[in-house]
Amino acid sequence: MKEVKDYKIGGNFSDLVDKMEKSGGFGAKSLGKAVQILETMNKEKCVRFLSFPACIVSTGLRGVIAQMIERGLVDVIVTTCGTLDHDLARAWGGKYYHGSFDADDTELHQKGVNRLGNIFIPNDSYGKPLEEEMNPILEELYKKKKEWSGRELIHEFGLRLEDESSILYQAAKNNIPIYTPGITDGAFGTNLVWFSQDHDFKINLLDDEKELSGLVFKKDIKTGALMIGGGISKHHVIWWNQFKGGLDYSVFITTATQYDGSLSGARLKEAVSWGKIKEKAKYVTVDGDATIILPIILSALYEKS
Amino acid sequence: MKEVKDYKIGGNFSDLVDKMEKSGGFGAKSLGKAVQILETMNKEKCVRFLSFPACIVSTGLRGVIAQMIERGLVDVIVTTCGTLDHDLARAWGGKYYHGSFDADDTELHQKGVNRLGNIFIPNDSYGKPLEEEMNPILEELYKKKKEWSGRELIHEFGLRLEDESSILYQAAKNNIPIYTPGITDGAFGTNLVWFSQDHDFKINLLDDEKELSGLVFKKDIKTGALMIGGGISKHHVIWWNQFKGGLDYSVFITTATQYDGSLSGARLKEAVSWGKIKEKAKYVTVDGDATIILPIILSALYEKS
Amino acid sequence: MKEVKDYKIGGNFSDLVDKMEKSGGFGAKSLGKAVQILETMNKEKCVRFLSFPACIVSTGLRGVIAQMIERGLVDVIVTTCGTLDHDLARAWGGKYYHGSFDADDTELHQKGVNRLGNIFIPNDSYGKPLEEEMNPILEELYKKKKEWSGRELIHEFGLRLEDESSILYQAAKNNIPIYTPGITDGAFGTNLVWFSQDHDFKINLLDDEKELSGLVFKKDIKTGALMIGGGISKHHVIWWNQFKGGLDYSVFITTATQYDGSLSGARLKEAVSWGKIKEKAKYVTVDGDATIILPIILSALYEKS
Amino acid sequence: MKEVKDYKIGGNFSDLVDKMEKSGGFGAKSLGKAVQILETMNKEKCVRFLSFPACIVSTGLRGVIAQMIERGLVDVIVTTCGTLDHDLARAWGGKYYHGSFDADDTELHQKGVNRLGNIFIPNDSYGKPLEEEMNPILEELYKKKKEWSGRELIHEFGLRLEDESSILYQAAKNNIPIYTPGITDGAFGTNLVWFSQDHDFKINLLDDEKELSGLVFKKDIKTGALMIGGGISKHHVIWWNQFKGGLDYSVFITTATQYDGSLSGARLKEAVSWGKIKEKAKYVTVDGDATIILPIILSALYEKS
Repeated sequence: MKEVKDYKIGGNFSDLVDKMEKSGGFGAKSLGKAVQILETMNKEKCVRFLSFPACIVSTGLRGVIAQMIERGLVDVIVTTCGTLDHDLARAWGGKYYHGSFDADDTELHQKGVNRLGNIFIPNDSYGKPLEEEMNPILEELYKKKKEWSGRELIHEFGLRLEDESSILYQAAKNNIPIYTPGITDGAFGTNLVWFSQDHDFKINLLDDEKELSGLVFKKDIKTGALMIGGGISKHHVIWWNQFKGGLDYSVFITTATQYDGSLSGARLKEAVSWGKIKEKAKYVTVDGDATIILPIILSALYEKS
Repeated sequence: MKEVKDYKIGGNFSDLVDKMEKSGGFGAKSLGKAVQILETMNKEKCVRFLSFPACIVSTGLRGVIAQMIERGLVDVIVTTCGTLDHDLARAWGGKYYHGSFDADDTELHQKGVNRLGNIFIPNDSYGKPLEEEMNPILEELYKKKKEWSGRELIHEFGLRLEDESSILYQAAKNNIPIYTPGITDGAFGTNLVWFSQDHDFKINLLDDEKELSGLVFKKDIKTGALMIGGGISKHHVIWWNQFKGGLDYSVFITTATQYDGSLSGARLKEAVSWGKIKEKAKYVTVDGDATIILPIILSALYEKS
Repeated sequence: MKEVKDYKIGGNFSDLVDKMEKSGGFGAKSLGKAVQILETMNKEKCVRFLSFPACIVSTGLRGVIAQMIERGLVDVIVTTCGTLDHDLARAWGGKYYHGSFDADDTELHQKGVNRLGNIFIPNDSYGKPLEEEMNPILEELYKKKKEWSGRELIHEFGLRLEDESSILYQAAKNNIPIYTPGITDGAFGTNLVWFSQDHDFKINLLDDEKELSGLVFKKDIKTGALMIGGGISKHHVIWWNQFKGGLDYSVFITTATQYDGSLSGARLKEAVSWGKIKEKAKYVTVDGDATIILPIILSALYEKS
Repeated sequence: MKEVKDYKIGGNFSDLVDKMEKSGGFGAKSLGKAVQILETMNKEKCVRFLSFPACIVSTGLRGVIAQMIERGLVDVIVTTCGTLDHDLARAWGGKYYHGSFDADDTELHQKGVNRLGNIFIPNDSYGKPLEEEMNPILEELYKKKKEWSGRELIHEFGLRLEDESSILYQAAKNNIPIYTPGITDGAFGTNLVWFSQDHDFKINLLDDEKELSGLVFKKDIKTGALMIGGGISKHHVIWWNQFKGGLDYSVFITTATQYDGSLSGARLKEAVSWGKIKEKAKYVTVDGDATIILPIILSALYEKS
């Protein structure tokens, strides 16, 4: 057994996460281990999945994720429709503001301000502009072909942005595919629905899945995943990875709890029983708010590389 | 202000939830209020949405949800692909077992047993059988037409079941639509992908959305929602309801927390700012495990009706 | 392995918790098991500990706990100073009101209203009256002797109440000891401090512990515990029970999570390693809000007895 | 309203927490604000309370807290008996080890290893040695006087240690009082009980409270509190601060949730209604595991000073 040593504050991020892994106990140990796993994942030439929910794209973490792509830490992204909504809204000039969890939501509604946790999103930063910007692009794309996969569509939108902090921009620029298995669940998807009402326009849902299938059925491929939050994005990553015998590396950041049987709260070890993570994989679940946990992990990771 | 009175145990479910609403405080008050809202929702002729995640379909709650449909408490269902997987697997004879959260997942994997919280699902209750049962039905449907919406497909599968405890069976029998905005995210969806590899078979993703759109754009319609858990199912229900000016009634059962900005943890009042719930709607968030909360609510509700 | 069966709503509390234990999965299974354990605990002639935090005494659950004592379900109580505060305040006529978690706390402060979750407690229901009622009793007791144990003091206050919904009243009447290892942490304790400033009045802290020690060192004694919430009350119960080789039965209701290493979130199985719960004990942790979980458990338990 | 800006990883802790406060959103914003508040608290000549639970003293954070005292960040400590237990056990040579939350607790018990979250504590690092080391010191102190306050006792034990990572050592050396309102709730307290069985030895419980009272009734005093976790320690800090009109500054780190009415989960704003925190105080609740949150906060704080 390894002894728990007392430690002192001092040094940089890299020092701190090392101390946490060696001596931090409880959640700190998991965070320290997460950095080690991600470091290995980046050194090994493995296919690195990143999944995350839309909510964090409404915060400054959008830039942090864009930077991850820019720095080459990500090979495949799986996320939700809301990510497209917030990323595009902000790339097209929409402004998001600091608010409060305790705001009066009726008052906000009357002012035309939407609340996302402690972020305020005025209607004119989000809904209408999104529709107005999307339509000309859809017209343009529709002229090319009538049926698109989600990944293709998202790529096309990314190509048309000029915002270094945009996730779609960086993904398009660096040729990183973005998959959104629930692409209709938000403003982006709904604008596709509206557009399809007077255009013979279609989303080929199965094409994205065939690509993911092709990806994991490659021979001798190693895969790793950094999964932020649960829901459909997390599930989609582990789901496809079962077909190659499971992830080799995995870090999961969550605030959810397991007792209710939810996938969002399920510890990664559960995925081992399903073969979604390999028995011998390196993996860790870090409990906590991604807006805090992720920047710490990345700060240490960048220092170490 | 209304005084808090002490109460005593005694009486039936209906009595208890009344006492909780009047005197229970904290979470009990929310549970009591939830029953009142659902009671009103059922009396009013409003369109009642039910959303839930897949995990609970692996428990005995599957029968409870089937019973809700049978008793006419639900008009529209929004759920995830995993619901289809577990409901079909069990309707086709797959057996699920009581297990433990603390099981050794490596050992389980070697035995071919998948763990879902404290439920054990042997491989032969789930994966292969699902594929073998689905394929002939897909062949049959493919002969009818090559492009299907998710709702249509699910209905067809439901029609072919004979299991009173099945959600798909009761939904088909009672003509209740089931929408799964992330239909590819699981075994059902993946079997569609495999099938489409040697068939010119397509899922029309946007058709489901057009139906939902048609549903909420009806004039003078009132809507209510019982949402169990967060994720894509919850979001999809509130998303579409914004287009009619928001839900009139809403009950949300969750174990998630709001501080991380997640939709799964967002209190319902947040949805008011977005116009997804009406300013004057009756709504309540009940914190707790749906396997406990839902049966209590329904027991009281059935007694009252 | 035991198969998971679907179930339907119908029947009384006793029926429901049986179904939950057999088929409920996730948290419902724990709740069902909790009822079974408590039933056995009551049948066996074991010493039954009850621990709980103060907060629930501000709700109608105060009456429910008083009723537990009245019905003979409890042999020893361990709780916090706040329990004394709220129980006495309300026994002496203080009125508590339904409020809201989202209230404006600055406004409340200016109005002299204290908020405890969603309960509002006006100053004149709590602080001053408590002091004014306590002092004459303390004068009276001081004349008897100058040094009191906590248990003795609490008993004397209970004897002077006339409120069937009071925990202290029922405990005194039924001769059930109440121990508060943190007796100074609240209004009751602070009034003792004020009183001792002009009286040679003392609390003998160690006497309570000697009694607890005497209790658990009895030969061949069996013990069980229903612990609501964590903190000092839970710890004190399991702490003393280690000296007799551990609890034989235990049910723990909590909303806390284990990843942070907290005792409040520690699953009961952790206590087995310490010998605070026997290796072969029957025990279960139920995750959820006690204002919901406890009344359900008791409703079923009373029906069964 | 202040706009949310995207940010990038880079720079030191101080840079990161600034970015979090300006752009992090959700929990990150709270963490950034916490650093600002603590910085102000240290610059202002206010009396700084530190409260924390015992569990973290079993991890390397023990050294981090000792360092806080050494660096002069703390004026008054309020904690639980378990802190004394773990701090003394380790100062006297007891070794704690890295373990796992998923360990087999029956097996551990049979090996004489106690589990505290993911920390393993062999019996011979903890129980017996504590008793053997404490007794001679108690004999020595008993010769001086027969009645001790908790604060005095703890100070005496601290004076006899030689361990720079010890909280009691640093507190004694720097003359920082440690109050434990539930001093009997653990090994330290129980050894006092055993000792008192054959010695006329007493703990004067009310003396500590009189000291705290003297502390907060000083004229024109400003107070601040860093409270880690809930329970009796948190409550005791805010409780006493109400008598001076409330805390001027406060940072609360918690993993608990408010819906159950618990004090551990109550947001700091609730304390404003009670006058335990001033209406105009600077305060923030940070949700997360203290083993992660505290080192980040301190790293930034030390860089800034």
